[in-house]
Amino acid sequence: MTFNLYHQEFKNIEISDVSTFERQNVEKAIKRLRNEIAEKKIPAINIVEKKDDLENFQKITQSLQKFKKIFVLGVGGSSLGAKTICAIKPNCQLEFIESIDPDSIANSLKNVDFVTSFFLVISKSGQTVETICQALIVIDKFKKENHSQQIFADNFLFITADKSSSLAQIANKINAEVIDHPADIGGRYSVFCAVGVIPALIACLDVKKFRSGAKLAIDYFLNNPTIADSIAIQIELYNRGFRNNVFMPYVDILKNFTDWYRQLLAESLGKNGYGATPINSMGTVDQHSQLQLYLEGNHDKFFTFISAKIKTNDYTINDLEGCKTLFANKKLSEILDIEKNTTIEVLRQKKLPIRLFELNKVDEESLGGLMMQMFLEIIAIAYAKNINPFDQPAVELRKDLAKQILANFYE
Amino acid sequence: MTFNLYHQEFKNIEISDVSTFERQNVEKAIKRLRNEIAEKKIPAINIVEKKDDLENFQKITQSLQKFKKIFVLGVGGSSLGAKTICAIKPNCQLEFIESIDPDSIANSLKNVDFVTSFFLVISKSGQTVETICQALIVIDKFKKENHSQQIFADNFLFITADKSSSLAQIANKINAEVIDHPADIGGRYSVFCAVGVIPALIACLDVKKFRSGAKLAIDYFLNNPTIADSIAIQIELYNRGFRNNVFMPYVDILKNFTDWYRQLLAESLGKNGYGATPINSMGTVDQHSQLQLYLEGNHDKFFTFISAKIKTNDYTINDLEGCKTLFANKKLSEILDIEKNTTIEVLRQKKLPIRLFELNKVDEESLGGLMMQMFLEIIAIAYAKNINPFDQPAVELRKDLAKQILANFYE
Repeated sequence: MTFNLYHQEFKNIEISDVSTFERQNVEKAIKRLRNEIAEKKIPAINIVEKKDDLENFQKITQSLQKFKKIFVLGVGGSSLGAKTICAIKPNCQLEFIESIDPDSIANSLKNVDFVTSFFLVISKSGQTVETICQALIVIDKFKKENHSQQIFADNFLFITADKSSSLAQIANKINAEVIDHPADIGGRYSVFCAVGVIPALIACLDVKKFRSGAKLAIDYFLNNPTIADSIAIQIELYNRGFRNNVFMPYVDILKNFTDWYRQLLAESLGKNGYGATPINSMGTVDQHSQLQLYLEGNHDKFFTFISAKIKTNDYTINDLEGCKTLFANKKLSEILDIEKNTTIEVLRQKKLPIRLFELNKVDEESLGGLMMQMFLEIIAIAYAKNINPFDQPAVELRKDLAKQILANFYE
Repeated sequence: MTFNLYHQEFKNIEISDVSTFERQNVEKAIKRLRNEIAEKKIPAINIVEKKDDLENFQKITQSLQKFKKIFVLGVGGSSLGAKTICAIKPNCQLEFIESIDPDSIANSLKNVDFVTSFFLVISKSGQTVETICQALIVIDKFKKENHSQQIFADNFLFITADKSSSLAQIANKINAEVIDHPADIGGRYSVFCAVGVIPALIACLDVKKFRSGAKLAIDYFLNNPTIADSIAIQIELYNRGFRNNVFMPYVDILKNFTDWYRQLLAESLGKNGYGATPINSMGTVDQHSQLQLYLEGNHDKFFTFISAKIKTNDYTINDLEGCKTLFANKKLSEILDIEKNTTIEVLRQKKLPIRLFELNKVDEESLGGLMMQMFLEIIAIAYAKNINPFDQPAVELRKDLAKQILANFYE
């Protein structure tokens, strides 16, 4: 597959290897998904064509330029997408707080100056334990420093779908602005709406390009069989016992992408005993940590590699006088490529199934395209397997149990 | 299992569930390992009793106090162990560089002041591609800034086993000191020798306690059946199809520990088609990302949770006036415990096998104990399955291929 943003190919498996039964099965799922897209029935996908919301978001984020540090409080779907896109600017002033380990919170808040810090608080339900606790801890710290309620309002922005939720009540109490989380877009599909876009704007990213990259992937899916084929191949691989899905970029800033994809895959497909297990891995580091297992352990893994044709930076390696290495006069990017290609080659020789993505460039557009392709694949696989890709029923059971215990805590 | 440092227990599986065949098998392996320890045949284990090496290491690291920033160049076994132990001090001046993505290197070296920066360069073979390239890039940058050779020597320290290797030659060329990497200790087992101990000393950690914690775990293994039983249980779980090993601490600074364990498990056991797949996960974050799959996906996962009885910091949650949440007056550590316990409970109800570790405290001693227990378990499992826990033959094949290509690059 080659379109404007990246090239994709498979090794050791191709569309003709897929059983007739699964190909027919997938064909129906693809048809359903294509129709739903045409009929604008999937908000998480439609939203990339929206334009009128960006102006308001831009106005909001422009007013934040005076802050030195911006914290995003949120966990899972409320943070992984934004972290993925914001990684393009590794040194921006954003910090994501997801944990409720008291030692981590203390570490994050240690040297915080509240007057020059801003807190973006995100939870679709407005009931997320981590996010509420973090917000209350920060507000408490403000209060103890004798800041007035007016300053609270200036330093907070909330994104939530439920105006009666605990988080919305906290926002109201401190007079902070609340932006709607679209009620019909689940957390793990929220990267193209305010949840991903506002942090991206804070990081000075081109969100129009991010959405237009996604739009390109949708058009490609509607008019071309390649993404449809990649869905059939993944189902076939699962049937053949390749139930662990190793995602291994050779682009460091895609580390967050692998975390985002992990949730998308696990929560969308992990139902009725189905669901490949996503495994995030990083090249070249995991050549030194995991490759032995990949090559000679249980052959239950399917590998996805991502590389970038163009790096922003590069180095030429210069030997010291009289001290010859294999690397002299080579570019670091060339050495990285050899490391990646030899890893792929030894896996190929073991007949393990491989998918390769080569991005032309790591930018907003290619990331938008890649993330949208992942949406389309996961939704279509779920349709083919009669799974609802949008719910997460088992997770709710645990949340209910925790709420019960919390409510009866001192009884 | 309860000894001085932590408590361990299993849920949904116990020693009596293990087949007689595997129990006998494991018994032989345990006997072999106990004998080898008694006869001081395993250098990676013996080394924790060594005391005379620390004085020299301390002298070296004391002379580094004048540097503002210390970079560790190394990858895999040369960095994961040190990262694990040094995470106890999250804000120390150490930075680990493992990647050869040119954009990451540029980012790491962007604002580096070479006069106040120190580089600890670690590679057992002295031939590691990443480490050599990084060292040459840094030296080149020094040269271009017109620093003299004397300054090179002051700002570098190398750890390697092979004095004729490329890395040792580079060290000699710039007159830098070289410390021996023990030739009989492999990278993934090197955390208790100079490779782990020197970075730990730089981070001002108590390495004597780190080693004495490990010694406690060895003594416990020699005189008590609990660790031996945990080895038999893991083999039984693998036989029953639980081939993915999810490691999920509820202690953020143990994130590096999961990366370290991933290499130890994968490289030691991933041979002859054997080898559970390690999956690193973090509580509570992955309750929002992976729990749906764990509960209702393919039941091929065994879960290890780690928590800490005592946190250094804590917070009491205070509600805002007239805005009631479930969290008021509760401690954050208590809420974290409820989150963890409810996750364990829903997995228990699904009859999934679980292991729990509760550390009394997260410190050098408990981390030393836990890391040594992992050594003992992995080595004994390998012995029981006729696997060599100390080599990594498949990884070497890729390295040879890369060397061939590099040597013929311009032909």
